[in-house]
Amino acid sequence: MWPITNCVPSATSRRRFQFVSPLLYTDSLNQDIQAWIDRLRAGDTRALSRAISTVENRATGWTDLLKALFPHSGKGRVLGLTGAPGAGKSTLVDHLARHYRKQNRTVGIIAVDPTSPYTGGAILGDRIRMQEHFSDPGIYIRSMATRGSLGGLARTTADVATVLDASGRDIVMIETVGVGQDEVDIVRLADVTVVILVPGMGDDVQTIKAGIMEIADVFAINKSDHEGAERVEREIRALQSLATRPDGWTPPIVKTVASEGAGIAELAAAIGEYEGYLQKENLTFKKNVQNWGERLVEMLRDAMLEKAREHLGDGNVARMAAEVAEHKRDPYTLIEEIAGKIGKG
Amino acid sequence: MWPITNCVPSATSRRRFQFVSPLLYTDSLNQDIQAWIDRLRAGDTRALSRAISTVENRATGWTDLLKALFPHSGKGRVLGLTGAPGAGKSTLVDHLARHYRKQNRTVGIIAVDPTSPYTGGAILGDRIRMQEHFSDPGIYIRSMATRGSLGGLARTTADVATVLDASGRDIVMIETVGVGQDEVDIVRLADVTVVILVPGMGDDVQTIKAGIMEIADVFAINKSDHEGAERVEREIRALQSLATRPDGWTPPIVKTVASEGAGIAELAAAIGEYEGYLQKENLTFKKNVQNWGERLVEMLRDAMLEKAREHLGDGNVARMAAEVAEHKRDPYTLIEEIAGKIGKG
Repeated sequence: MWPITNCVPSATSRRRFQFVSPLLYTDSLNQDIQAWIDRLRAGDTRALSRAISTVENRATGWTDLLKALFPHSGKGRVLGLTGAPGAGKSTLVDHLARHYRKQNRTVGIIAVDPTSPYTGGAILGDRIRMQEHFSDPGIYIRSMATRGSLGGLARTTADVATVLDASGRDIVMIETVGVGQDEVDIVRLADVTVVILVPGMGDDVQTIKAGIMEIADVFAINKSDHEGAERVEREIRALQSLATRPDGWTPPIVKTVASEGAGIAELAAAIGEYEGYLQKENLTFKKNVQNWGERLVEMLRDAMLEKAREHLGDGNVARMAAEVAEHKRDPYTLIEEIAGKIGKG
Repeated sequence: MWPITNCVPSATSRRRFQFVSPLLYTDSLNQDIQAWIDRLRAGDTRALSRAISTVENRATGWTDLLKALFPHSGKGRVLGLTGAPGAGKSTLVDHLARHYRKQNRTVGIIAVDPTSPYTGGAILGDRIRMQEHFSDPGIYIRSMATRGSLGGLARTTADVATVLDASGRDIVMIETVGVGQDEVDIVRLADVTVVILVPGMGDDVQTIKAGIMEIADVFAINKSDHEGAERVEREIRALQSLATRPDGWTPPIVKTVASEGAGIAELAAAIGEYEGYLQKENLTFKKNVQNWGERLVEMLRDAMLEKAREHLGDGNVARMAAEVAEHKRDPYTLIEEIAGKIGKG
């Protein structure tokens, strides 16, 4: 078994392995990881939780774990769900999860809250949600309230989705609380993205929404029993008439009242419709390649940055920052010089 | 003069210079850039606008321009102002700009809207604002509505602020429309950050605000003649009582009614108070070093990514993405291999 005592969430801990004899290391490591993965894939929730923590915290062995999990991934559907705070996302996601459970599909939910650690809202709400689903091991909920550190929340979320996917979950739902570029980045790499709107949030909120308009494959107008649902629908139609998507798809608009479970089957149907469209038009693979292209570039950027940091050392960054702050050096020339040196090895 | 016909906004154009004899190139380039900078620093708005466009679009010679401008920067104050949409930021910024003008200080405003290109709102509103200040060359307004591409909007905004600072503006104001991580990143590197709140936006909005709570050096409660201003103030005080800032500063709360120009002098005074505090506690330089430390790491990340992209070529990224999408290769091993190769030159 993977020794949990070694799971220190440290950015540098991974490096340690490079000084261990590769062969010896690989053998015992692979055995440990294989046992862990077997348990995880057999439905052991503790093994799954520990794998997610390892990946989320970039703890010792996180890449080895992902390497070993990757071959098992790619079978589940990844759904991204986003919308403004107060749109009723959690309730909608919960009902959708129950809908999929009735079809005997297993569900993993990643609830991402990129906002401040000040409010513990997401975590608290999550615990209540987890209790609700406690009796059903077919629904696994995990919250990620940590603010994007270096690698970025989007990449970490994608990696956690890979773990859930590899664990055999049929549906992985990524739910984000928020409306900014962060949320766009997080749900962008899902197979299907649902944007949740609500009536009566005023024109200002409509303005924020514009940013997430483009990533929607399906729109849900939640709380559609409230006044103004028709107006929201008209506004989406108006925006849709301005531009055609490159893939030719016109995102359907589904009205829901999540608190009553209304419109959930229709929403699931709309999601399925888009998946069908992608398959019919042979776009599934194309979209996958495009997503991986973006993910690979992000991963490469992180790897190169880590390389650069190792090369520099923390003390040097502070020293150079002081030189720039004192205007002794210009930062643009400085960075060119450093990047040039690293390239030469 | 810098040949404007060469100003193609291309990510790869910068590389071209590497094949020109460095000495010949540097001489004629420096002459061109020097003339450009002389005009820009003499108050030529066209020269300034062109410099900003060059930096914003990463057009030919953008780093050379920044290298030459950097020694002239560091004298202006950079203010970051952020808050939810509808908080009346533009009006507040305009009044603050007029306040500084009365003190004979020149002002540069960067209005950043990271939301969608769907809504042309920012650009249109900006034109109206520019007309209003047209008669006063002491106020320069520039909008950046472009979505953060690879390098990221935060870094581009910081570079544009450096241009305005180097042009001799006493005050550079960065105003962002939005509430997410993007906005936090954009205003984080300002000398002073003002977070603008408004009463009566409900609990949901307060939740989003939490994310920008921590970056505030000064709070402005705008539209404070509306009901609920006291409640917002109480909420800020409550949040402030939960944690002490590392620098020991307690951000003051200023009530404003921007549409009537009320509270503007008080806001400017609060900003000045924080600057005074930083100086008194010898924190100005420390904050500067910290900011540059973060900026340098970001710049290094971008430089390393560009290096990696050059090394790979676009075609290879697509090929590798396809292999990963087909599950022929695992992305984690792939990235390690590539990063390893580049490190070796």
